Amino acid sequence: MDLLLTSRALDDHRDLLEAAAPPAARWLVFDADGTLRIDGSADVLDPRDAAPEVAWLTSDLFDDGPMRQFFGLVTRAASLRWFQSSAAGFDAPVFGQMLRRGVRLTSSHISGPPIADFVLRAALDHLQDADAWRAAAAERRWERHDFVEMGSTRWLVIGLGTIGREIAVRARAFGAHVVGVRRSPEGHEPVDAIARPDEVLGLLPESDVVVLATPATAGTTGMVDAELLRHMRAGSVLVNIGRGALVDEAALLSALDEGRPARAVLDVTATEPLPADDPLWTHPRVVLTPHSSALGDGRFRRAAETFAQNLERYVVGGPLLHEVTLDDLDG
Amino acid sequence: MDLLLTSRALDDHRDLLEAAAPPAARWLVFDADGTLRIDGSADVLDPRDAAPEVAWLTSDLFDDGPMRQFFGLVTRAASLRWFQSSAAGFDAPVFGQMLRRGVRLTSSHISGPPIADFVLRAALDHLQDADAWRAAAAERRWERHDFVEMGSTRWLVIGLGTIGREIAVRARAFGAHVVGVRRSPEGHEPVDAIARPDEVLGLLPESDVVVLATPATAGTTGMVDAELLRHMRAGSVLVNIGRGALVDEAALLSALDEGRPARAVLDVTATEPLPADDPLWTHPRVVLTPHSSALGDGRFRRAAETFAQNLERYVVGGPLLHEVTLDDLDG
Repeated sequence: MDLLLTSRALDDHRDLLEAAAPPAARWLVFDADGTLRIDGSADVLDPRDAAPEVAWLTSDLFDDGPMRQFFGLVTRAASLRWFQSSAAGFDAPVFGQMLRRGVRLTSSHISGPPIADFVLRAALDHLQDADAWRAAAAERRWERHDFVEMGSTRWLVIGLGTIGREIAVRARAFGAHVVGVRRSPEGHEPVDAIARPDEVLGLLPESDVVVLATPATAGTTGMVDAELLRHMRAGSVLVNIGRGALVDEAALLSALDEGRPARAVLDVTATEPLPADDPLWTHPRVVLTPHSSALGDGRFRRAAETFAQNLERYVVGGPLLHEVTLDDLDG
Repeated sequence: MDLLLTSRALDDHRDLLEAAAPPAARWLVFDADGTLRIDGSADVLDPRDAAPEVAWLTSDLFDDGPMRQFFGLVTRAASLRWFQSSAAGFDAPVFGQMLRRGVRLTSSHISGPPIADFVLRAALDHLQDADAWRAAAAERRWERHDFVEMGSTRWLVIGLGTIGREIAVRARAFGAHVVGVRRSPEGHEPVDAIARPDEVLGLLPESDVVVLATPATAGTTGMVDAELLRHMRAGSVLVNIGRGALVDEAALLSALDEGRPARAVLDVTATEPLPADDPLWTHPRVVLTPHSSALGDGRFRRAAETFAQNLERYVVGGPLLHEVTLDDLDG
């Protein structure tokens, strides 16, 4: 069995991975410069001679890694049976293509802790109007203001996967009241109440913090439109850590001009990187971050643990964790 | 029984207060302009003719309220038997003077939720280096960076009163490991471990977030000195929401220049308001806020509930909640 990954990912997690792989496994590794090798050999391997059965997409590929070479091999290799992603989202077209040619696809749910940390920081920053403290300090002004305590706020978390649940746990530790939105509740979600997607409009007028923590699918794309925004509460904040495609950005800018919501925290945008002339950059009620909420330093280890767990299951023919199907893409 | 308070505090909480007071109670109220009246009468009362038995210090007095007139009457009134403060701290000289003339003094422990909210925001902001996101967004740069997840951090919370405990509960919901420092542990503090004050130096090298949540007393004044700072960890953050007097500010500035701690979040300073020429304003590793961490919007109601509870106890001669003695001032 040949397994494809980056040499960096193998080096960082070798013990974990070797313990999970079968004895006859061979590691096909891409070096940072795009060279393909068999682990343990210095000889360069022509990608046309490689036949990986398994491929593991790690986040180092996105950081100036050999992304083009990796996806080039993956999309051509007829040998590929299983593709493990380190991301939760699967809206990029390449995933649909792989599924349609019969490759099994598994996602990773490792971003809950950092994204929840990010959302809590962003919500506290809004509720405390920390911008005003920073602006006053920059001018050496000792200027106090009252702020809203988290414990008096009501949250609407749209999407209760790993990420939404981690957000709910943290917000509730502050005493916030959290309503989670989920199509198919399992009954043990850590929230004060569960709502269905068609109840969102009715809940918005009483929600102080609205978090988009749902993937972009055919059913969720463009869900934050002018009508939804009209239902938001004055003073509320919209936090999008899902996908830019969830939001009609023109409608959002108009709504922000009207003050409902009072602020939008956008870690994701319809176009990424956001073009320099996009009005989102300069709108005074928009807080922008460059798709960074998942970049917590614990993600590498969690990704390796997910792949190692799934590799053990794959070897013995067991069910894979977080398997994605064509139905999920259309959901 | 005459009770002294502001007319605003009485108007905001009349039902609660009247239910707790004895039938013969008279409310002596200071209007915002410093006029003293008996509640229900428009006639101005000369403060020399007032003989309050009870006085309630509310935070509206600090916001351009008739503070001078209030304390003028309180410090002169030989009739005063009990003074309810709405603050947790009692290091201002006036409190010692009242205790020495036999006035009972009670503090309020209503600041836990907002101060804990503040500390968590400040710690998350540091761990996520949100400053870098803000600086990049101001220049329309799409620039990503990894950040430290809260769940991998170790906290040292010095002082485990109401405030320290609320901080610990929140930090642990993120998965942080929290050590609390307390002279006399009660055994049910919501922390991972308890330490005594003389163990602080030994714990600092492994603490990522160090929070000062202790009052300024003879025993704690100047506790953060050059020696303590030398024990702090590279990359760590010091958060002071206690009192400015806890910190030797000159030693702190030197330590920040060396990078240990990496950042100081100071909501309190030795001199307040901080003079415009103080170097704390401009040090790149100092985050300053103007003694605002307690200014959550739930504090007025919690203060009134504390006073009403204590008033019921006072009327029947029961023990008062949060009574402060001269021993506490020397502690």
